[in-house]
Amino acid sequence: MPSYRAPVEDTLFLLNDVLDYASYSDLPGFADASPDLVEAILTEGGKFAEEVIQPLNLSGDQEGCKRNSDGSVTPPKGFKLAYEAFCEAGWGTLSADPDFGGQGLPHTLATALNEYVSSANMAFAMYPGLTAGAIAALTLHGTDEQKQTYLPKMIAGTWTGTMNLTEPHCGTDLGLLRSKAVPQGDGSFKISGTKIFISAGEHDMVENIVHLVLARIEGAPEGTKGISLFVVPKRKLDADGNPGEENGVSCGSLEHKMGIHGNATCVMNYDEAVGWLVGDEHKGLRAMFTMMNEARLGVAVQGLSQSEVAYQNAVAYAKDRLQGRALSGAKAPEKAADPIIVHPDIRRILMQIRAFNEGARALVLWTALHGDIAHRSPDEKTRQNSEDMMGLMTPVLKGVLTDTGFANAVNAQQVFGGHGYIAEWGMDQFVRDARIAMIYEGANGIQALDLVGRKLPANGGRAVMAFFEEMKAFGKANKDDEALAPFIQPLKQGADHLQQATMWFMQNAMKQPDNAGAGSTDYMHLFGLVAMGYMWAKIAKATHAKLANGDAANTEELKAKLAFGTFYMERMMPETAAHLARISSGCDTMMSVDADLF
Amino acid sequence: MPSYRAPVEDTLFLLNDVLDYASYSDLPGFADASPDLVEAILTEGGKFAEEVIQPLNLSGDQEGCKRNSDGSVTPPKGFKLAYEAFCEAGWGTLSADPDFGGQGLPHTLATALNEYVSSANMAFAMYPGLTAGAIAALTLHGTDEQKQTYLPKMIAGTWTGTMNLTEPHCGTDLGLLRSKAVPQGDGSFKISGTKIFISAGEHDMVENIVHLVLARIEGAPEGTKGISLFVVPKRKLDADGNPGEENGVSCGSLEHKMGIHGNATCVMNYDEAVGWLVGDEHKGLRAMFTMMNEARLGVAVQGLSQSEVAYQNAVAYAKDRLQGRALSGAKAPEKAADPIIVHPDIRRILMQIRAFNEGARALVLWTALHGDIAHRSPDEKTRQNSEDMMGLMTPVLKGVLTDTGFANAVNAQQVFGGHGYIAEWGMDQFVRDARIAMIYEGANGIQALDLVGRKLPANGGRAVMAFFEEMKAFGKANKDDEALAPFIQPLKQGADHLQQATMWFMQNAMKQPDNAGAGSTDYMHLFGLVAMGYMWAKIAKATHAKLANGDAANTEELKAKLAFGTFYMERMMPETAAHLARISSGCDTMMSVDADLF
Repeated sequence: MPSYRAPVEDTLFLLNDVLDYASYSDLPGFADASPDLVEAILTEGGKFAEEVIQPLNLSGDQEGCKRNSDGSVTPPKGFKLAYEAFCEAGWGTLSADPDFGGQGLPHTLATALNEYVSSANMAFAMYPGLTAGAIAALTLHGTDEQKQTYLPKMIAGTWTGTMNLTEPHCGTDLGLLRSKAVPQGDGSFKISGTKIFISAGEHDMVENIVHLVLARIEGAPEGTKGISLFVVPKRKLDADGNPGEENGVSCGSLEHKMGIHGNATCVMNYDEAVGWLVGDEHKGLRAMFTMMNEARLGVAVQGLSQSEVAYQNAVAYAKDRLQGRALSGAKAPEKAADPIIVHPDIRRILMQIRAFNEGARALVLWTALHGDIAHRSPDEKTRQNSEDMMGLMTPVLKGVLTDTGFANAVNAQQVFGGHGYIAEWGMDQFVRDARIAMIYEGANGIQALDLVGRKLPANGGRAVMAFFEEMKAFGKANKDDEALAPFIQPLKQGADHLQQATMWFMQNAMKQPDNAGAGSTDYMHLFGLVAMGYMWAKIAKATHAKLANGDAANTEELKAKLAFGTFYMERMMPETAAHLARISSGCDTMMSVDADLF
Repeated sequence: MPSYRAPVEDTLFLLNDVLDYASYSDLPGFADASPDLVEAILTEGGKFAEEVIQPLNLSGDQEGCKRNSDGSVTPPKGFKLAYEAFCEAGWGTLSADPDFGGQGLPHTLATALNEYVSSANMAFAMYPGLTAGAIAALTLHGTDEQKQTYLPKMIAGTWTGTMNLTEPHCGTDLGLLRSKAVPQGDGSFKISGTKIFISAGEHDMVENIVHLVLARIEGAPEGTKGISLFVVPKRKLDADGNPGEENGVSCGSLEHKMGIHGNATCVMNYDEAVGWLVGDEHKGLRAMFTMMNEARLGVAVQGLSQSEVAYQNAVAYAKDRLQGRALSGAKAPEKAADPIIVHPDIRRILMQIRAFNEGARALVLWTALHGDIAHRSPDEKTRQNSEDMMGLMTPVLKGVLTDTGFANAVNAQQVFGGHGYIAEWGMDQFVRDARIAMIYEGANGIQALDLVGRKLPANGGRAVMAFFEEMKAFGKANKDDEALAPFIQPLKQGADHLQQATMWFMQNAMKQPDNAGAGSTDYMHLFGLVAMGYMWAKIAKATHAKLANGDAANTEELKAKLAFGTFYMERMMPETAAHLARISSGCDTMMSVDADLF
């Protein structure tokens, strides 16, 4: 049976020592998040994830969800009780608006906790996760009445939320969508259409489900400029705001998916369901996009989460499984064979995952912190810079953490040999669950295009230039620190490659946009490697500082951390050159072949 | 529903134009394999794979195998009939020994056909595939009587075969195995023990199953030097050699696997089952190893096969799915959107897979041809060189084609967006099926160790030196061919990196063997990239020759082939530098961390 232990110590180290969380105590909400409280929240949240949610992961995968003959959907055994305990403990309210029952704490904390819950059980985490997305959309675009009606229940978790975008013929290109909304003259609309891939679309864990639905108002312009956002409750609300009669929305079937079996992914049929406009007419896409940064960061965390839990289990197996002898001579001569962690090729796999996990976790928290600053800082310039950093890093995190997180889950599975391929060890579930994160909330190719097509050129490249300057300043400030040289030098080389690639786009993508498309995915990964390399340099600095302070309690752990970071620089950063070479080769070869000759 | 078309034209082009198959007509068996016959066999074999075997792939995955209460196992619907048709048509006998009912044709042809059958239905292909492995073992190590008893039935396919190595506590390290064999004094043994992960271990498609089982004769030495190989029929044979009463062997349960659901992967219980020694006492591992090259080549082909079928379906989807507009302006303005194949990032994925598939197919056939030459050439030196090449390339093919084949299946799945994640499109099956090939028949980490630890140093590096010389000679012979420059230059660069990496091992792995282990997987992939690059250079030469000959019928296809090859050189070869950098970083960092600190 797979196991999981929340990496609370690493999160705390990143928050306290690397990101200097305490220095933001003048921001609203941060003052309440004292170091003690942060530690208590993460410790208790981690324990909840380990003890209540994780035990339902494998069984939830094997049992899956069931659609009953009346169209209702039953999640796997134990999910409902665990969900109620989750809400009871207030884990869903951490960073929610206090005006509607939230705790108003920094979103960074909710992000950290989200990693634990996703590691423990990704399919489960999606129920509150989708709700959080719907809360964000209503908070930003709902009327006061809508907020009063829906937010308290959703924040408390007694109602969950969904996002309804995709239709059978359109996903990425929402301009093609056909679901229609007919105004009823009383401010309400009747919504009709079919939506697919709707996570948490129908289930019996709560008394109501709040569907946010993209549809086209009758007579609206074609394309993306004619799409509006609607709120459609599963049960209509009575005069007191309580769920009453059924609305015209139902689950037509459950998708047969590769993974996340514990989450009810539904085909949703809307048949003149009553809904209300959220935000302006025909501005539905904009309403969706404003909440996407947050949702994409959540999916990025899913990639990290599966990489982390897969790593932990692979380490446990590698220490336990006896097979063969170390090349340099027996390490456990008293046993029939050595544990396979003595073999360098096993260590290579484990260190590669670990080096990614810590760098990725740092980048997630760094970005989430910028998100908090962007929302809470009193200083406009500070807000703008944080907004820039968050916007720039969001597609990078979503694309790179899910691509690499999946690859890491596959590598961790490999450590188990044949046992990784069979269900009882749970490794194949991590692989199958991780796979979806590369696809939904904008497939990773779309993230790459968002990065090179939108985020890079925005405001004359202001965001990317600021990021380069920040790295440069860090390098300059630490150039004489000999202990940091193994980090600063490779980072500088990687950053050079990233700058060259950026320059190449500036010179070649204006006249031929396909040059941007052809290099977009490589650029995204190049960016991710360098950004995580920058995080590792910051981690190394904080680690050395802690070692110098003589914090002897975990000296060995700190030294190991430096080794994981060194591994990152030695073994992962070299990939930046290959990315640059591919980017620089441009689009000519790939565009030269007629579609029929593929 | 997924579809499949056997790439017969590409196989024929590789055999005839790139590998000059006709020039080997003086070898035994090759004279019969005239170009016309080869074309007829591949065409008909391809059709059989497409029409009879492929339609059972998705249904076989969804239905899976069933273990009945009496311990018998029923494969998915249709498998038995298809298997009988397969045997009827003689597809299993192509390269088998004519003395026992085989056709004696080159093994290269059987390898080419194996790709088609595996693409069509990997789980199905394993039933005859495992039989072929058992046939090879009995052919090499069985007594004349054993051969007479088993081979005719196994070659005809009326009996199938299995390989029983793995036990719950040992897979890679067979020295730990515990299954025991007690001599009965009449030449027979009673075998007892539990074997796991036994492909095609039990099923009702044939009248008997021939289990080859590794076990330890009572009193044998410990470790790998005390292991013997036994043949254990499911039903004992009566005086006429026909299956009679049940032997003490049964399927305890079916493994719950991530994929290849159509193949019955069994836990096999041996309870005083009667068996007979194959080969010498205590030399069972050697008997296994001599057949491993062939089996590993078969698994390499599985990696290619899933990459190919996933590619074909991704191409079809990319041409069909309308979503968004080309960055350079609408390409199908009459439609609501452009087909997604207009997008460079989609083409990047498709070309990467295609460029791999053609290079990999060439390398498979090149290696299989060396296998034929090694077995059939009258000239000792030629035989030795071919044996060297086959031995050298086998771990490279097994490791690289399955790692990259899996990654390609994942990338092809990505083209489908959300539809790739749900069962009805069949893409997730290719991913799940491809995954096992990285694990079984020696996990890929073991292949990498076989390459750097055995194949590289064998005979003072004779094999690798010969391979370098061959590439160098090719470069020299074509250095003035301007049309080939885009292939020769990057190949030279990649080969340089490979030579530097080889040199690095020679200088650093003797004194510290962990340096070999730490770089082994990167070296294997570096080797594969260069070897496939060499194949692409040969393909390009043959393509230019065909274009120069004015073979106008498929000029556009030939030009596209050059573009796929150019893509390989521009986008895939740059990875060699990253591999070299990682290899050269050595083992120090990864060995510096205590196991408890992971």
